[in-house]
Amino acid sequence: MSTPLKIAVAGLGTVGAGTLKLLAENADILRMRCGRAIDVVAVSARERGKDRGVDLSGVKWVDDPLALLDCGADVIVELMGGSEGAARALVEGALAKGTHVVSANKALIAHHGLALAKLAEDNHAVLAFEAAVAGGIPIIQSLRDGLGANRFSRIAGILNGTGNYILTTMQKQGRDFDDVLAEAQALGYAEADPSFDVDGIDAAHKLAILTSLAYGVPVDIASVHIEGIRSISAADITHARELGYRIKLLGITEMTSAGVLQRVHPCLVREAAPIAAIDGAFNAIHLEGNAVGRVLLEGAGAGAGPTASSVVADILQIARGAHYYPFTVKSSDMKAVKHAAIADMTSRYYLRLSVKDEPGVLAQITAIFAKAGISVQSLIQHDHTPDTPARIVMTTHDTKESAMQQALQQIASLATVLEAPQMIRMESL
Amino acid sequence: MSTPLKIAVAGLGTVGAGTLKLLAENADILRMRCGRAIDVVAVSARERGKDRGVDLSGVKWVDDPLALLDCGADVIVELMGGSEGAARALVEGALAKGTHVVSANKALIAHHGLALAKLAEDNHAVLAFEAAVAGGIPIIQSLRDGLGANRFSRIAGILNGTGNYILTTMQKQGRDFDDVLAEAQALGYAEADPSFDVDGIDAAHKLAILTSLAYGVPVDIASVHIEGIRSISAADITHARELGYRIKLLGITEMTSAGVLQRVHPCLVREAAPIAAIDGAFNAIHLEGNAVGRVLLEGAGAGAGPTASSVVADILQIARGAHYYPFTVKSSDMKAVKHAAIADMTSRYYLRLSVKDEPGVLAQITAIFAKAGISVQSLIQHDHTPDTPARIVMTTHDTKESAMQQALQQIASLATVLEAPQMIRMESL
Repeated sequence: MSTPLKIAVAGLGTVGAGTLKLLAENADILRMRCGRAIDVVAVSARERGKDRGVDLSGVKWVDDPLALLDCGADVIVELMGGSEGAARALVEGALAKGTHVVSANKALIAHHGLALAKLAEDNHAVLAFEAAVAGGIPIIQSLRDGLGANRFSRIAGILNGTGNYILTTMQKQGRDFDDVLAEAQALGYAEADPSFDVDGIDAAHKLAILTSLAYGVPVDIASVHIEGIRSISAADITHARELGYRIKLLGITEMTSAGVLQRVHPCLVREAAPIAAIDGAFNAIHLEGNAVGRVLLEGAGAGAGPTASSVVADILQIARGAHYYPFTVKSSDMKAVKHAAIADMTSRYYLRLSVKDEPGVLAQITAIFAKAGISVQSLIQHDHTPDTPARIVMTTHDTKESAMQQALQQIASLATVLEAPQMIRMESL
Repeated sequence: MSTPLKIAVAGLGTVGAGTLKLLAENADILRMRCGRAIDVVAVSARERGKDRGVDLSGVKWVDDPLALLDCGADVIVELMGGSEGAARALVEGALAKGTHVVSANKALIAHHGLALAKLAEDNHAVLAFEAAVAGGIPIIQSLRDGLGANRFSRIAGILNGTGNYILTTMQKQGRDFDDVLAEAQALGYAEADPSFDVDGIDAAHKLAILTSLAYGVPVDIASVHIEGIRSISAADITHARELGYRIKLLGITEMTSAGVLQRVHPCLVREAAPIAAIDGAFNAIHLEGNAVGRVLLEGAGAGAGPTASSVVADILQIARGAHYYPFTVKSSDMKAVKHAAIADMTSRYYLRLSVKDEPGVLAQITAIFAKAGISVQSLIQHDHTPDTPARIVMTTHDTKESAMQQALQQIASLATVLEAPQMIRMESL
């Protein structure tokens, strides 16, 4: 094991440059921890001339990332991103010839995880992607190894730092979504097209990967129920606080009697729950295992350093000769599992309604709930000025989602209800 | 890899029985995750007849744990405890013949870790001890693998659940230490001899192991500065809260300019720090790495299930063929490191003094601090009744420990100071 491990890096953006910096800065301890040197033999990126603050002397530069396949590397480190195109071709090309792959590419793994895992297994290569989920938090490692003795019942996580930053800022400053998003974009914390972050897509990619690892089932991004945070208002955050809750965008995967249920949506969580205290761009993952009970892992979910921490952790394990299946369970042993629909789920619900302030409104609404068998837990009709509508905030006891959706449709069609009702699920953590 | 992994278990107390139960209950998923069955071939414990709620039919029983060495096991699982005697002999015997060892025995690893690691390495055996530190939290795994790319600057943890339970109960119920300890003993949460837990010894064992893993240095329990929680009063907890702090028993290891400093003592931590919210018997570990930034891992620190979760995680990795050095770095590559003395440390301090209520007392005390170059950050003289002494609570800016100790000696010798001053260090987390 004393020969150096040769790696080639595709993509020198924030994470790629961070990875090269970390390999250089911690070279001494990495060598001690894996017993050999880690040598960067080749890199590929878009702009050759750009100053990235890393020394590339002695490193071969190729313009076409696919040319990295012919540089004699033991490991291809794919940090380009995107579920198709060059990233996919490079990863497939490497695995097909038995070269190990380390990738931070959640979209690629979420969309093609099973096929890539098969390719890796057929060619005795490692495919590692710790950095694809929750940045620096060692969650994939923990599911596979440190917590691998457990049967997991539920995993719930704050998996998108930008979304959590926006919700936290809305909460702390009492501001509305559009306002905080515009500021986050101006500061560079959110993308010009924020959809991946605020519409829950990024969190869904990560959740689908966690589901596969936790339950030994094929990655299935298509079955994730996805809602984002655009509909959350400052008023919702205020009402939630009055009730003793915080609003968080969670990715939740759980084993239910109807099958695996994967969902990304805003949730009210008790303010005493540890995950409620995760603020700003941090990520956190709450796990429930039949032996360990509940565990919470918390850390930075993005950024050059934290993501590089996970990329290099994967490289380190390959350098030590570790060998495992990409999703822990061999892909041919994975069971096609039934995916539960969100309509089958049972939850408590928070509702906010804007109504005309006239006699009988409350009676109409509560009659709909009574008929649907929905039990109201709390109801507050807020005081209002003559020129604003009356506002009703209510929470329910456990209710079937399908019953709630039907009741909401009926409520929305009432002439006395002025806006589409706001519904946010409540999650016990 | 399709032959079963044969294991022999020594010790069938809470953790041993929990391990056998977990192996049976999760046999299906364990098999999927490691690609082979895990068979218990032999066990040894004190009382053969005792009902442990586990099926031992078909399992060989030996009265002498050392006889497990001749049962053809691939892995010896040592769950007896104790740093000497049968546990040590069994682990040494197994490693000497190249049999892998999984142990939950923190005292054994803290006292003999380096010698055992050498023995394991010389005989190509794995020595794994995830369960020895922080129960179900996968901290050893994380230091070695998932966070292994980092240079760690500081690790601070709540490493003893009993101590944390006592402090949390004192805080929530405003009760004094002796009272809560007696209740915890009556409820079976604390041992009849509580010294290991409340005097910081158990936490020190765990901290010495973490230090070795984090810094690649030999385990050195003798250099840990240890103070327990017996001196903490309900008054201290109240005053800390008034200042915006909680009191926690922490194990802290950090790389300082004077060397590695390992210490276990009560600390004031800001109530907004995530670790301040860890209540009851839970454990938590705060890590700082140069790439990942800060990470917090939280979970149950003891109990049958959580501890078995870590024991079986180690077995699972061995079943997969994982091979690593016990402390990540090969023992011959470990550097003898300078250990810093607590006298060299700089910290902020909380002090509580009982004094006579007479003119000049404050002037005497502040003069001692001024002469020692200690800068006072806050000072509150509490109102008192005629028959109780006056109480002064103060906090300092950063101060060298040696200067503080000298000042405390001088203060203690003042005729106007009625009790030994209470000093608690403040830790920024």
